[in-house]
Formats: sequence, C-alpha cells, structure tokens
Amino acid sequence: MNAQDFLQILREVKDVTFATTDENGRPRARIIDVMLVEEGRLYFCTARGKDFYRELTEGGYVAVTGMNRDFQMVRLEGKAWKVPEQKKWIDRIFEENPVMNDVYPGDSRYILEPFCLDGGQMEFFDLGKSPIQRWSFVLGEEAPREKGFLITEACIGCGKCSRSCPQKCIDRRTDCHEDRCKERREASGDSGAPYVIRQENCLHCGLCQENCPVSAIVRRGERAC
Amino acid sequence: MNAQDFLQILREVKDVTFATTDENGRPRARIIDVMLVEEGRLYFCTARGKDFYRELTEGGYVAVTGMNRDFQMVRLEGKAWKVPEQKKWIDRIFEENPVMNDVYPGDSRYILEPFCLDGGQMEFFDLGKSPIQRWSFVLGEEAPREKGFLITEACIGCGKCSRSCPQKCIDRRTDCHEDRCKERREASGDSGAPYVIRQENCLHCGLCQENCPVSAIVRRGERAC
Repeated sequence: MNAQDFLQILREVKDVTFATTDENGRPRARIIDVMLVEEGRLYFCTARGKDFYRELTEGGYVAVTGMNRDFQMVRLEGKAWKVPEQKKWIDRIFEENPVMNDVYPGDSRYILEPFCLDGGQMEFFDLGKSPIQRWSFVLGEEAPREKGFLITEACIGCGKCSRSCPQKCIDRRTDCHEDRCKERREASGDSGAPYVIRQENCLHCGLCQENCPVSAIVRRGERAC
Repeated sequence: MNAQDFLQILREVKDVTFATTDENGRPRARIIDVMLVEEGRLYFCTARGKDFYRELTEGGYVAVTGMNRDFQMVRLEGKAWKVPEQKKWIDRIFEENPVMNDVYPGDSRYILEPFCLDGGQMEFFDLGKSPIQRWSFVLGEEAPREKGFLITEACIGCGKCSRSCPQKCIDRRTDCHEDRCKERREASGDSGAPYVIRQENCLHCGLCQENCPVSAIVRRGERAC
C-alpha cells in the first residue's frame, strides 16, 4: 500500500476530522467531508464565513484523521492551500458529492472554497490487528518525521525492555542476511544493539525506555550525534 | 439535552479525535477512546512515551470531536488536566473498558496516565436534520464563545440575506410575545433589526454577510460597542 491508498481510506471514511490552530494557538477541530482524492491530492472545502476558513487562510496547517470500521486509522498532517479556479472545482466537488446540494442549494455553493492537501506526514495505524500495526509515510517532498524509540549501542542485552513490552515487539537481534530481515532492521534505525524494536508494531508507549537500566533507549529523531 | 448528554454521545461514539498543538504551533490529531464520562467530566488516557502525552502536559489544550451514525457531531474544546491517584483511575478505566487489556496487558497498563476534561466550549451539530441544527454549550465556568453572525440595527429590511440563505434560517422579525419566540430572539442576540438569524439552524457560511447591501451583518463576538 502507498500514500494514495491511505488517502483513499480517508475518502471512503468521508466524514473525517480536520484540526487547525486558532488565533490563540489552541487546537480546534470539526468533522467535514473529504470531497475528492486524486493524483496524491486530498480536496475539501469550507465556507468563507467559518472560523475554519480563517484558520486555513491564516496558517494553513491542518491535521486530518479518520478511522474506518476495521479500526484502521489514517492521519495526514500538512499545509493546505487554496485551489485556483475556485468555481470550477466547487462544481466538480458537487458533481462527485451530490448530497452537498441539500446543504448548499443553487448558487449558494459558491460561498464555499476548495482547498487541497498534497504534502505532509502520514500515518496508518491498525488497531484491529494484534500486535497493532503502523506505518509512516510522507506525502510530497517533506522530510519524514521519526517517531517512537530506538535502542542504541549502549544496550547491554539484558532483555528487560523486551519482557516489559506490551505488544512484544522487541526482539533479540539476529544478523540474518535475508532481505526481509535486513529491511526490517534498516526501517527500525538499526544501531547494531543486541535488541531491536519492530517499529511497525510499536505503540510508542515508552515503557521500554522507562525500564532500561542503562538508559540505552532514546526517542527517534532526538538521538545524540 | 444538556452538556452531560452531549458528553455521553462522545462516550457512545467512543473512538473520537483528540487534537492538540505541537511544539511548532501546528495541529496534531489522533483517534483515541473516551474511557469514562461521569459528573460532567470526560476521562481519557495516554502513554508517557507518546507525543500526545507531551502536548497534554506542556499546553493541555485539546479539541475533542466525534460523530455518531445519525450524523450528530459533538465538539468539546478545553484544557485537560492530569488526574491525581493515577493508578486508581487507570484500574477503574480498565474495569470499564476491558478491551484495553489486549493492548496493555498486566502491569504495562501503568505506562498510561489518566486525564480529565471538565471545562470548555461545546457544540452539538446535527447534519441529519434539514435545516441543520446546532447548539452551543459551556462545560464548567468558562465564558461562552459566540460564533456565527448577527444582523444589527443598520438593517434596512430589504430581505436579500433571507433570500440568499442556503438553510432558509433568516426570518422577518415578529414582535411575538410568546415565550418561545422571545427566547429564540434572545438566543439570536436580538438587536431589534427587521430580520433575525435563527442561530440554531445557521451554517455560519457567511453568505448573508456578503450579500447585505448596507454591511449590517457582523460576526457575533466582534460587534462594535
């Protein structure tokens, strides 16, 4: 699965949450429709009178979150931009989402303006599986944001982290040279330590870090040079 | 219906979005469970290793949004606080939500910490009805935030706003003295103008304001002294 597939999940869920930051720096959130997904772009719209419109045009950062009936959650966090050729896109959106005519009949539709999100951090989180599964993606050109934890070379191999992990996703390292194992180690930010976190099953709860007797576990993206 | 009833909707939806602001002032959002609702308080929890935990303990402002199958959306925006007697409350949460044991078995549950939200702005928005219905509430002691628009005394009674309204929620004013009509006028911030917006049916789209030939329509909460 790729970023487009995950955008498609948001389109299928349709009623998803769009969070923004208001003029006081506080979070605001509302549920609106994902109107279109195509060519790696997610389209939505809002009316010029709404606080949401003001937050979009002043800052533009938005966090989109939706979950389907299989408990698969998709997150997309990035900067939205106003689509040019506004009327053309609003007409297109109404064609694809005819129920919008019940809310904004006739020409009142043009109080709405279309916005697009085609870049940002994406995350897929499947709580319907045991252990949980998660994957991170980048939509567009942005650098990926690293989350969760990493076991550094300071690890003494005591295995306390592995025993305490609620999802049992910390394994003794093997030097297996099969492609699958090598890829997994690389994806986990392999440091050569005796234990490795399977990032795709990690809750990011931090219990391993709290239990490590030698402080060998650090937050990813914050590791020492 | 009162604030407690709307909190109860969030508990029934259960998987709702919690939005926060990160260290760069950008919105972040994830879907988690509403664990308990009682005595006008909403309880949730998160693990100490998560970004969400850091955002809660550093700023604490959170926007909660959920929608049920009848297209009724509830929003709650306020400041969350960490509940004292952490272990007692985590045990209580696991008792009420036994499925949590699948994710955090045994003592691993204590990597979670409980938080509470018992104050803030609430909004109920029913998109399953035509015209739409909305109500605002305050949970706790905070001053209510006024949203949407108000027709001021500058109104010349041309009726252009009423004809353009997509939800047909702008009426010619009547001086009806029935309690129901008086209450509605008061709730709408009655200015004595010839036209009045039924706030409980308003989308806040702003089309009336754009169409008013004499700029008599202003944002509520921003009206001149």
